[in-house]
Amino acid sequence: MVDGEFALIEQLQSKLGGGGGGGGGGGGKGVLLGIGDDAAWLDPAGQSLVTSMDTLVAGRHFFVDVDPADLGWKALAVNLSDLAAMGAQPRWCLLSLALPVRAEGYSQWLQAFVEGWRALAESADVALVGGDTVATDGPLTLSVTVLGVAEQGVMRRDAAHPGDLIWVTGTLGDAAAALDLAFMVRSMPGYDFACSAAQSETLEARRLRPDPRLDFGRAALAAGVACAMDCSDGFLADLSHIVKASGLRARVNLEHLPLSPALRDCIDQDLARLQRWPLTGGDDYELIFCAPPSLTPSLINIAHSCALPITAVGQMLPADPQATESVDIYWQEQLLALPDIRGHQHVF
Amino acid sequence: MVDGEFALIEQLQSKLGGGGGGGGGGGGKGVLLGIGDDAAWLDPAGQSLVTSMDTLVAGRHFFVDVDPADLGWKALAVNLSDLAAMGAQPRWCLLSLALPVRAEGYSQWLQAFVEGWRALAESADVALVGGDTVATDGPLTLSVTVLGVAEQGVMRRDAAHPGDLIWVTGTLGDAAAALDLAFMVRSMPGYDFACSAAQSETLEARRLRPDPRLDFGRAALAAGVACAMDCSDGFLADLSHIVKASGLRARVNLEHLPLSPALRDCIDQDLARLQRWPLTGGDDYELIFCAPPSLTPSLINIAHSCALPITAVGQMLPADPQATESVDIYWQEQLLALPDIRGHQHVF
Repeated sequence: MVDGEFALIEQLQSKLGGGGGGGGGGGGKGVLLGIGDDAAWLDPAGQSLVTSMDTLVAGRHFFVDVDPADLGWKALAVNLSDLAAMGAQPRWCLLSLALPVRAEGYSQWLQAFVEGWRALAESADVALVGGDTVATDGPLTLSVTVLGVAEQGVMRRDAAHPGDLIWVTGTLGDAAAALDLAFMVRSMPGYDFACSAAQSETLEARRLRPDPRLDFGRAALAAGVACAMDCSDGFLADLSHIVKASGLRARVNLEHLPLSPALRDCIDQDLARLQRWPLTGGDDYELIFCAPPSLTPSLINIAHSCALPITAVGQMLPADPQATESVDIYWQEQLLALPDIRGHQHVF
Repeated sequence: MVDGEFALIEQLQSKLGGGGGGGGGGGGKGVLLGIGDDAAWLDPAGQSLVTSMDTLVAGRHFFVDVDPADLGWKALAVNLSDLAAMGAQPRWCLLSLALPVRAEGYSQWLQAFVEGWRALAESADVALVGGDTVATDGPLTLSVTVLGVAEQGVMRRDAAHPGDLIWVTGTLGDAAAALDLAFMVRSMPGYDFACSAAQSETLEARRLRPDPRLDFGRAALAAGVACAMDCSDGFLADLSHIVKASGLRARVNLEHLPLSPALRDCIDQDLARLQRWPLTGGDDYELIFCAPPSLTPSLINIAHSCALPITAVGQMLPADPQATESVDIYWQEQLLALPDIRGHQHVF
């Protein structure tokens, strides 16, 4: 434990623990015994379990000077996005913080972190039930494990079929463009482009506080969607995972990728920027999902009720042993040479 | 992801995934969908869930030159020990590895790590179902989340009663003495003492490959034991957690703490060493549990069937507002002044 932080950690527990902590037992949300024992004891109420774990390292997954409130939000959000892609209902999470020793301690830092985390945890109805806090001689490192429940199966990567339409929620590329802006602001080498202050703010908000598509994911599963994945490593890389797992090919129309007004202005019909941000940029935390055309009316209704636009961007095709690429990208009726697929650091 | 390690990570998944990975579904051990999707999908078969997370940092929780096979074993063992203390049955785990970039890569390292991990995972019947692998500019950092199931409640820290006997499994202090030896071997400042090569080997094995007391924990819970905790931060610190959570006091006889023959020789009736290793040293991963004397015959039978010695070391007492200490340690009928309680880095 980082010295001198016990009192604050107890605050963190009481603020994020969802009521089941300490010796009280009971508590809401299926927490039979929360933080404070060797392990948490939880009640999935007969449902199956969905779980995922993501790790974020300062200097690699976020800037060292990040606002801890934004970091708290995002550390939880990237994990919840995995549950959204499965169509699961989030319930609990565990948080491991490896904190570099520093003279000023972490009191203020943790208060802000908790504030950002809690803002999302409350809306997603997820309770912190355990974790670990250690000191490190390296960069600040967070691992989050999220646990959800599923009543009726899950959406998976390997369940796409030929003829399925390929959909994405929301808009793509905002966070990747914001990352380029953030490099520029910090005078770090990167991709230079012009952007108004208002546009920059819009894009930056998308990078810092992604909104996991939990309601949409659950509703899509309930409506019969079998195949989904969250878009975190870049649309092309993630669609390629679906294509490979399902043993298919895909055709995508680059001009159909949904863009926010801010990003549309910044791209200004520049093909290189289209490829850099919405096609291969990461950190979108939107859902890519595949569904037969017969589901389209239901999906449009769901999108409307979630106030979340969805866009059909292409179609799944049967495998073709002659094809050199598993995903064909078309731009103005022309087949594009594929850019490198550069993703983030995820493996599992 | 650390460059160039995809093939090996896939091996790691196939070796540790317990059969449910890839697109196949099915698989044993309740793994409906393992590594390879956004999240794992698991079936607790109507049982409640027990979960814990621990993080280990190179240079703080293990030596940088650790044999990766020993690290694989220990990273899993320290987490399973938490489940043992609850009386839960381990089922699944997630592993996050933050690996410093290095020229020689991690092929050999990961093969050894997998070997050590698997040796314990197979005997504990626990499948790897997810996780993350990232690069770091800092020390190698591992986070493990373990998931188990409980049919009939759990043992907890706050359930001791006045009159309960205080028991410990196995022996205490071996790992702490081995840590002192390890500092000596590395010419690092520490506590100097004499020890034969054979004794050193015995103690070191206990430090490197702790044996989580899973069978005993489950059997003790089934026999009616309500209160247990794993002894990882040092016996005195961990017993103090039980005492505080249960709102009691405790009396412990220092000469009753169970010692291995190797450690007994090294201690040679030196009171300072008794306090340093079995009383306050960490990393034992034994169980401390409290039970009414009426359970003693059952507990002795369980210990016999698990081939694991257990030792009564003291008794729980009613709270006393006049008492200055919550745990009284006696040595040859004399009340000792308490040493500092120095524990490890755990918080939750």
